[in-house]
Amino acid sequence: MLDDLFSPASIAIIGASRDENKIGNVILRNLVSSGFSGRIYPVNPSYPEIMDLKCYPSVKDIGDPTTIAVIVLPARVVPQTVEDCISAGVKFLIIISGGFAETGPEGKKLSERILSLVRTSGTRLIGPNTVGLYLPYSNINTTLTSYSRVSFPPPGNIGFISQSGALGLLTMDAISEYGIGISAFINLGNRLDVDETEFLDFFETDSRTGSVAIYMESVADGRAFYERIRRFNSRKPLVILKAGRTAQSAMAASLHTGAMASNDSIFDGMLSQAGSVRAYDETELIDYARVLAYSKLMTGNRITVLTTAGGVGVISTDYISDSRGLKPLQMARLSENTKDQIRKVIVPYGSAENPIDLTADGSVSDYDRVLEILMRDDDVDAVLVYALPQTPKMDMGVVDVVEKHMKSGKPIVVGVLGYKIAKQLLVEFERRKIPAYPSVHRSVKSLGALYGYSAYRRVRQ
Amino acid sequence: MLDDLFSPASIAIIGASRDENKIGNVILRNLVSSGFSGRIYPVNPSYPEIMDLKCYPSVKDIGDPTTIAVIVLPARVVPQTVEDCISAGVKFLIIISGGFAETGPEGKKLSERILSLVRTSGTRLIGPNTVGLYLPYSNINTTLTSYSRVSFPPPGNIGFISQSGALGLLTMDAISEYGIGISAFINLGNRLDVDETEFLDFFETDSRTGSVAIYMESVADGRAFYERIRRFNSRKPLVILKAGRTAQSAMAASLHTGAMASNDSIFDGMLSQAGSVRAYDETELIDYARVLAYSKLMTGNRITVLTTAGGVGVISTDYISDSRGLKPLQMARLSENTKDQIRKVIVPYGSAENPIDLTADGSVSDYDRVLEILMRDDDVDAVLVYALPQTPKMDMGVVDVVEKHMKSGKPIVVGVLGYKIAKQLLVEFERRKIPAYPSVHRSVKSLGALYGYSAYRRVRQ
Repeated sequence: MLDDLFSPASIAIIGASRDENKIGNVILRNLVSSGFSGRIYPVNPSYPEIMDLKCYPSVKDIGDPTTIAVIVLPARVVPQTVEDCISAGVKFLIIISGGFAETGPEGKKLSERILSLVRTSGTRLIGPNTVGLYLPYSNINTTLTSYSRVSFPPPGNIGFISQSGALGLLTMDAISEYGIGISAFINLGNRLDVDETEFLDFFETDSRTGSVAIYMESVADGRAFYERIRRFNSRKPLVILKAGRTAQSAMAASLHTGAMASNDSIFDGMLSQAGSVRAYDETELIDYARVLAYSKLMTGNRITVLTTAGGVGVISTDYISDSRGLKPLQMARLSENTKDQIRKVIVPYGSAENPIDLTADGSVSDYDRVLEILMRDDDVDAVLVYALPQTPKMDMGVVDVVEKHMKSGKPIVVGVLGYKIAKQLLVEFERRKIPAYPSVHRSVKSLGALYGYSAYRRVRQ
Repeated sequence: MLDDLFSPASIAIIGASRDENKIGNVILRNLVSSGFSGRIYPVNPSYPEIMDLKCYPSVKDIGDPTTIAVIVLPARVVPQTVEDCISAGVKFLIIISGGFAETGPEGKKLSERILSLVRTSGTRLIGPNTVGLYLPYSNINTTLTSYSRVSFPPPGNIGFISQSGALGLLTMDAISEYGIGISAFINLGNRLDVDETEFLDFFETDSRTGSVAIYMESVADGRAFYERIRRFNSRKPLVILKAGRTAQSAMAASLHTGAMASNDSIFDGMLSQAGSVRAYDETELIDYARVLAYSKLMTGNRITVLTTAGGVGVISTDYISDSRGLKPLQMARLSENTKDQIRKVIVPYGSAENPIDLTADGSVSDYDRVLEILMRDDDVDAVLVYALPQTPKMDMGVVDVVEKHMKSGKPIVVGVLGYKIAKQLLVEFERRKIPAYPSVHRSVKSLGALYGYSAYRRVRQ
C-alpha cells in the first residue's frame, strides 16, 4: 500500500517559496539537499522557477501524475488544493499546514472536508499538521526544519513514527551525535487518514527495518491497534512511548493534538499483552529500539558484568539486582569452573566473581579471553561489557572483540562512560550495530528491554 | 586542617619516572601540564633530572619540607618511604600505590604499619590505592590518567569526593563535554587516614564550593558520618551516591574496596534524616549537584512547564505528575489571571494551560514575557523551561532571558533536546551556571532533587 511513498518517481511541493524565511522554501531546499533522484516540482503561481527548478502555477499544470504532493498552504485553501491533487492523479498527500482539528470547530470542518475528498478517491493523506517525512534510504527529506538547525541521522535499522513532529525532529538530532541511524521517520500529525498501523504494515516486511519506535499520545481505534501491534511483535520488536499517562498529562495531550487519550492502565496492559516494550521518554525510546534492532534474543535474564572499574560494576549490580527495571534481571551465578578459568586470565587483585573486575590492568586481549569463557557458561544469558577509556590498556580493538563474541554467542550490551575517547568508542560500536550506551542505567535498562521482548517471543513460539 | 593540601608550596613525586608507560611519569607530566606554580620535586635515585626538573634520590635529600608527597612505588617499600617523608617534614602523603588491604592479609599488614606511622606523626595520608587529586583552582593534577585519555573539567562549584578512582575520572571526563566545572576532585582510595568527613569540613567553608557530590560504597563510622553530613546539609547541599544497595552489590563492593557495606535501608533513612539527596548512578550524582550548586531553594513543589513542542510538555507532565521521582512534584495550577495574560502573548493555537505551549511560533521575546508573568504568580514554585532548537525562532538569546529571570525570581531548570544547536545551548547555559539537561527525565529528576533539599532546609530553619 505505502510502497510508492517510499520510492516515489516524483514529488511536488505546493507552496514552494523563494523566501528563505518561509517553510515552503525550507522544505524544497531540504528535498534538493537530501539528494532525491526523482523529479521535483515546485508549485507556486508567483514564480517561473525556484532554485533552478521549473515552477508550476498549479499541480494540475505539471502534466505528470506525481507520486507525492507536499502541501504548505494556509488551511483555508487546502481543501481546493486537495481536490486539484486528486484530479491530477497524485498518490500521496503530505499536508504540512496546521490550522485544522487542533485549532477548534472551524478547523475541524476543514478536516472533515479534506477527509471526505480523500476517502472517495485513491489518494492517501499523511497529516495534516505534520512536520513531514524523512526517508534516508530514498534520499527524501520533506521536513520543515533546516539542516542548519538539526542533524538528520544516517540510514539505519529503526523505523521511527512520531505523533509529535518537534519531538521527532529533536530526537533525530540527538541520535545523530552518535551516528545512530533510522530506516524512516514519519510524523503522523493529526492522523486524519493514514495512521501508525499502515506504516507498521510497511515496516514489518521492510528488510532494512529491525525494530520500530513509536511516540504517541492517543490511539484512534484501540482494538485494531492491539491486534496490529500483537501481530507485528510476533515478527519484529516494537517500542512504544505513549505519553499522557496521568490525568494531567492526558489533558495536555488532548490540547496538543486534539485527540482524547485513553486510560493509561488499560493501555499499559494492552502493550504488555501485545508484546511491545514500553518507553517512558525520548531517550528510552531509541535506546530500546537500538538494542532490539541489533541483538539476538536472550534466553534468560542472568547477566554477567565485565568491567575494569570496580565502582561501575557495583552500580551496575545495584540496578540489575534491585528490580527497578522494566523486567527483573538478575546477576548470573558463575560456576566454579568458570571462575577458575577467569582467575587464570586476570590479575590476582581483580575479581572473578560477578561483576568481573579486570582492574586497570585489564587489556583488550583479557576482554577477549574472559568473553570466550562467559560465552561457554550456560548460566550466563547476556553480558554487560564496559569499555572504559581511563586505563592506558583500553583501545579501539575492544570493538572488534565485542563484535566477534556478539556475532557468535550471546547478546552483549556495552557501557562506555566518559567523553574524550568514550565518544569515539560509542560511535564505532554504533557503526558496527553493537548496542552501546553512555551510562550505567541506560545500559541496564536496555538489557531489561531486550529481556522483556525476548520473554514475550519465547512464550509465543 | 586540610587548607595546606589545597594551596601547597611544593609537591614531591616519589617514584617519578622517565618511562612514559609508567604511572610515575604520567603523574609528573599531569602536574607539570596543569600549571602548578609551586615547586615540583621528582624523586627517583635512577635519574639526575626528569622533564627538566632536578630529580632527588630520596625525599630526605630535597632539603625543603615539602607540603605534599605523592607516592608511586611498590606497596612493600611504601612503609619505609612513609617514614622518610615523616622525618623530612612532609605534611600530606598521597599514596597512589595499590597492594594494601584490598589484596589480602599481607597487604593489610602493610596498611597497619603505614597507619601507625602516620598516626604518631603530624603527617596526614590520602589513600592508599587512590588515583590522586585534581584541584583546578590550585592548578594541581596528581592523577594517574593522562590528559590524552580523559578530559579534566574546568574550575567550578561542585566538590567531588569519590571512593572509586575510575568512576571519578570517567565522570570528570563525561562532564567536561559540557564545560561543567568542579572545585576539587578527591579520590579517597582505601581511606586509611583522611576520609570524607574532613573534606566536608573544608568544602563547608570553601566559598567556591556550592554543593558536594560523594560516591561511596561503605561508611567507616556511621554515627559520626551522620552527624557530619547533617551539619553540612544545614549549610550546603550534599548529594550521595551510595552503591552496594542490594545483597549482591554489597558483596561486589566489599571485594572492590575491602570494606564491608552497611544495611542499605538504614543508610537510606540516615541520608533522608540528615537532609542529603540520594543519587543512584553517576549521571544523577552530578545532575543533582549542579542544580543544588546553582539554584536558590524552592518554596514548594508546584512546577510550570514552558515549551515550544507539545510532546515534550506532555512527557514532562507525565514525569512531574506520576510521582516516580525522588520527591513528589506537581504541576502548578495557573490562576485565570495568569492564563489570561499568557494568552495575550502566545498564538491562538498555543496553550496557556500548564504545560504552556508556545508552539513553533514562540520567540525568545515570548519566553521573556511568559516568564515575567510566571514569576509573579504565587502558585508557581519553579519553572521548567525548554529551549528547543528545532524552530527558527529559537536562538542563543534565550540564555540571557532565562538568566535574567533566574536571578531575580524563582528557580528555573532548563531542558535542551537535540545535538547540533542544542549542544551549544547546553554549554552556554552551563557557563552561566544555569542548570540545563539534555533530557526530559533528567530535567524533572533534578527539579525533584532541588525540591527534596529545599523541603529539608525549610523544616530545619
